[in-house]
Amino acid sequence: MAKLVLIRHGQSQWNLSNQFTGWVDVDLSDQGVAEAKAAGQKVKEAGLEFDYAYTSVLTRAIKTLHYVLEGSDQLWIPETKTWRLNERHYGALQGQNKAEAAEKWGDEQVHIWRRSYDVLPPLLSADDEGSAAKDRRYANLDPKIIPGGENLKVTLERVMPLWEDEIAPKLLDGKNVIIAAHGNSLRALSKYIEGISDEDIVNLEMATGQPVVYDFDKKLNVLSKEKY
Amino acid sequence: MAKLVLIRHGQSQWNLSNQFTGWVDVDLSDQGVAEAKAAGQKVKEAGLEFDYAYTSVLTRAIKTLHYVLEGSDQLWIPETKTWRLNERHYGALQGQNKAEAAEKWGDEQVHIWRRSYDVLPPLLSADDEGSAAKDRRYANLDPKIIPGGENLKVTLERVMPLWEDEIAPKLLDGKNVIIAAHGNSLRALSKYIEGISDEDIVNLEMATGQPVVYDFDKKLNVLSKEKY
Repeated sequence: MAKLVLIRHGQSQWNLSNQFTGWVDVDLSDQGVAEAKAAGQKVKEAGLEFDYAYTSVLTRAIKTLHYVLEGSDQLWIPETKTWRLNERHYGALQGQNKAEAAEKWGDEQVHIWRRSYDVLPPLLSADDEGSAAKDRRYANLDPKIIPGGENLKVTLERVMPLWEDEIAPKLLDGKNVIIAAHGNSLRALSKYIEGISDEDIVNLEMATGQPVVYDFDKKLNVLSKEKY
Repeated sequence: MAKLVLIRHGQSQWNLSNQFTGWVDVDLSDQGVAEAKAAGQKVKEAGLEFDYAYTSVLTRAIKTLHYVLEGSDQLWIPETKTWRLNERHYGALQGQNKAEAAEKWGDEQVHIWRRSYDVLPPLLSADDEGSAAKDRRYANLDPKIIPGGENLKVTLERVMPLWEDEIAPKLLDGKNVIIAAHGNSLRALSKYIEGISDEDIVNLEMATGQPVVYDFDKKLNVLSKEKY
C-alpha cells in the first residue's frame, strides 16, 4: 500500500530570532537549508519514490520540498502549492518576539495561545498591515475565509478538504505522497491520521527537516509510523 | 492584456562538455545557476508578476524556474511540470560529444541533424539503454508516444497541445504566464507564436537565462517582443 511522508520545513530566519511567524513569508536560515538537504539524502538512501508532492504557499516549505526532491532525484514529480498547508495563522502575534510577548501578556497567556487546541490568538483585521487579505497569493480565495488568526482546531479544519479531496484518494490509489509543510499544519494532519485526542495533541512535536513516513492499510488505517 | 515570458535554462553541465543532451537529465553548471539567479533579478526589477508557471520534467529547466521565481518573490505561484516542454529528444546522439559526432558522421550530416527542421536524428529504440521508456517520469505516457528521437517539427507538434489547452486559455483570460524550458522546445513555441517559416526558424536562437517577454492582443497576435 501507499506511503505518506510528512516533512516540516528546516529552521527559518524567525525560528532563529524567536519570533511568531505564522503566515509571514520568512525564508529558511542557512541551517534550515542544510536540514532540508540532509532530509533529501535520507529520502534518497531510503529509496522513497513519490508520485505527488504537496506544499504550502510559503517559501520556507516550498524550498524544503525542492531540496528534498532534488536530493532524491525526483524534482520532476507533480507539485501542488496550497494555502491549506500553510502554518497556523498567528494573528496579531505574527512578527512579535516570543519573549517580548510573554513580558507583555504574561507567560501563562502566551502559553495558552501557543499550546491550547481551541483558543484563538489576538486577531488581525483585513485592514491591518500584514493581513493576508492584502497579499496577492490569496487573491483567488473567498475573502471571508482568509483568517485573521487560527488555533490548531481551525488549522485542522482547513487542512481537511485537501486530505479528503486530494491526498486520501491518491493514497487509496496506491500513490506515494510527500507533504512539505509546517509545524502546526502537520501536527493537525497527524492528529487526524493517528486519531490523537484534543488533549494529547499538545504533546506531539514535529522535528524540523525529519521525514515522518506512514504506511497505511486499504482503509487508511496507520500500519506503521517511522521517523528518519 | 496578458504577458508571456519564455526563459531558456541556464548553462548545463553538458553545454559545458559539448555533448548532445536532449532528454538526458543533466544538471545546471555553476554558471547556469548564476544565469538563472540573474534572470530572477531581471524579472524582479521589471516588476513582472506571474499567475502560472510551466516547465519541463528536466531538472535544469525546473531549477531555472525556481531560481527565477524565488528571485522575484513568487515561488508560491502554481507550477506545472510537463514532458511537452522537454528539450528536443536527440535520439542516439544523446550523450555523444558534438565534435566526436562530427568526426564519426561528418560535419555536414551532424549539421543537418542539428539544424534542419524536419530531418530526424538516428533513433533510440525502447529497449536501448537510455531510452525514455525506462524512465519512471514517463510511466504515465502512452508508450507509443515516447519518442526515440525528434526533429524541431515533431517537437513543435508535441508542444502545441500544451499551448492550446493550457497556455493560450490563460493568456486569453488575462493571466501572465512564465515558461522555463529548453532551446528547442522554446524555439518551436516561438515559431508558432511569431509565425516564423520552416526556413527562417533555423536563424532563431534563444540565449540561456535571458527572459523573452511577449505582449499579445485579444486574438493572441504578438504586440511586442522584448528581451531582458
